[in-house]
Amino acid sequence: MGEFDLIDRFFTRSPRPGGRTVLGVGDDCALLQPAAGMQLAISSDMLVEGRHFLSTVDPARLGHKALAVNLSDLAACGATPVAFTLALALPGADETWLAPFSQGLLALADAHGCELIGGDTTRGPLNICITVFGEVPVVEGHSQALLRSGARPGDDLYVSGSLGDARLALEVFRGRIRLPDEVFEAARARLEQPTPRVALGQALRGVASAAADISDGLLGDLGHILRRSGVGARIDTEAALALLASRPWPADAAGGFDAEQALACVLAGGDDYELVFTAPPEARSAVHQASRQAGTPVSRIGRIETDPGLRLIDRDGRVRSEGYRSFDHFA
Amino acid sequence: MGEFDLIDRFFTRSPRPGGRTVLGVGDDCALLQPAAGMQLAISSDMLVEGRHFLSTVDPARLGHKALAVNLSDLAACGATPVAFTLALALPGADETWLAPFSQGLLALADAHGCELIGGDTTRGPLNICITVFGEVPVVEGHSQALLRSGARPGDDLYVSGSLGDARLALEVFRGRIRLPDEVFEAARARLEQPTPRVALGQALRGVASAAADISDGLLGDLGHILRRSGVGARIDTEAALALLASRPWPADAAGGFDAEQALACVLAGGDDYELVFTAPPEARSAVHQASRQAGTPVSRIGRIETDPGLRLIDRDGRVRSEGYRSFDHFA
Repeated sequence: MGEFDLIDRFFTRSPRPGGRTVLGVGDDCALLQPAAGMQLAISSDMLVEGRHFLSTVDPARLGHKALAVNLSDLAACGATPVAFTLALALPGADETWLAPFSQGLLALADAHGCELIGGDTTRGPLNICITVFGEVPVVEGHSQALLRSGARPGDDLYVSGSLGDARLALEVFRGRIRLPDEVFEAARARLEQPTPRVALGQALRGVASAAADISDGLLGDLGHILRRSGVGARIDTEAALALLASRPWPADAAGGFDAEQALACVLAGGDDYELVFTAPPEARSAVHQASRQAGTPVSRIGRIETDPGLRLIDRDGRVRSEGYRSFDHFA
Repeated sequence: MGEFDLIDRFFTRSPRPGGRTVLGVGDDCALLQPAAGMQLAISSDMLVEGRHFLSTVDPARLGHKALAVNLSDLAACGATPVAFTLALALPGADETWLAPFSQGLLALADAHGCELIGGDTTRGPLNICITVFGEVPVVEGHSQALLRSGARPGDDLYVSGSLGDARLALEVFRGRIRLPDEVFEAARARLEQPTPRVALGQALRGVASAAADISDGLLGDLGHILRRSGVGARIDTEAALALLASRPWPADAAGGFDAEQALACVLAGGDDYELVFTAPPEARSAVHQASRQAGTPVSRIGRIETDPGLRLIDRDGRVRSEGYRSFDHFA
């Protein structure tokens, strides 16, 4: 199967009526007609075997994840997904891999009305590079995009959904811990098939003061918000620990897994694809309304402060002496 | 050097004043504000070591080529370059490679006013994936983009610049032929540092009936135009052979290199990044004016016909009996 057969067979679809795509796969370029007054939000992510996914992963889940991590970037900006390109390096044209991969990819694309408009295929070590396009309204000259730079001292600090479970699953794959089957399967789905918080991101436009998606771990990605906003933050570690969905632990987790390691998974596990965001205290009811509207739970886990840096507060209200660097380097 | 240091150091620049970029590298997404009434042309190309470039290539030339092959797709649509994203998988963060790579990349970007607005870096087998964005005007509801689908019987068939020299250089690298030093160096520059025909593509808007860029070889890429336009074509092989810029050959080319092999390089060599396009005979003066305006020579090498398929015409005006498939499979 040659490059063009492969594109025809697995990745070519007609432009969706009423969509923004004027011309899709099959010419030198795709043509996109942005709606009047809209800005285009653009993000690109590259997934490499062994680094972003295990070679044994279900190709359908991998197709889902490859697009999900990009949609998560759009979610962090509050953008509405429009379209994406797919560049794919493959060791060979294996139909038993390509069919489920494209199925998983396009199912998530369809769920978000995000059209595959072009890309590239080549032979090479497995590499998946997706560039995604979303729209953000501009109201009276002001972009409604959520940025990393808008956090202000006194703002509440929130996280969507749950954190740390993807890392728990990874630690099981690495043979470092064991989990009961049903707990592992749920955690594994979080690792292999993350849910981008697209609806929440859109609902937070005009509500959140800053936002980022959590791909490298909460501490790292919150760190981007803090640096670009010129502020610091405190995190309530008890509230953070409650973000781990996997239960029960550590009772059934073998290999010396304890509350500290669970906290490390939450704070620096990575691969969560949740949103971390800030909003002023007077926006609390608006935040909860956005959460309900999107069907995505959010938790308040701390607040933004003037002092630079990040402080972890224990259950007694004390700043933990070891700081957060030990967690930041968990990986 | 971590991922973020690397991005800061080699790939972060401020948005250009007056450009379309609202927000560049450093947030979850880049923000682009397309000009009113413009369509966005989008193309994505992935370059893999060993397949698209040799491991020994000068990194500055590779940086140039990685963007050039994408700009060539914009040229084929007649689009004006605006911005691009870069996703990069690297075996290691080698500054002696990254510095010249980013220099070569950004020099070409600057020459075309095309801003680097975001991307991704990761560790992995060397892989360069660029997605490029250009603008195409829409006039009275009609896109001015050049497409592959507009060729009509009777149209003239043109090629820009020269063809086949990149393949000659590759054959030297493979040890199959030898060339005089100065001939080789010129051919090698064509292979390693191609010139995207961006100005010509723009000048051909409203003049050419169809266009494609020549990346896989003239016959293959012309084939896309023929299939999508539902037409056939004849090529004057003498005119085609004159497109090879490398001289003298075959006198100084060792290894049994002859006119037939030279023709194969022209027709199916690949890596040319010239434009193949069609235009009605009454547009000949407009084509030559576009050529002068862009400073890019064009050659008329055949014409579009009603009969499907591609016919190669020899110097005596006869259709070559072996057809074009032997050239198409030259690689």
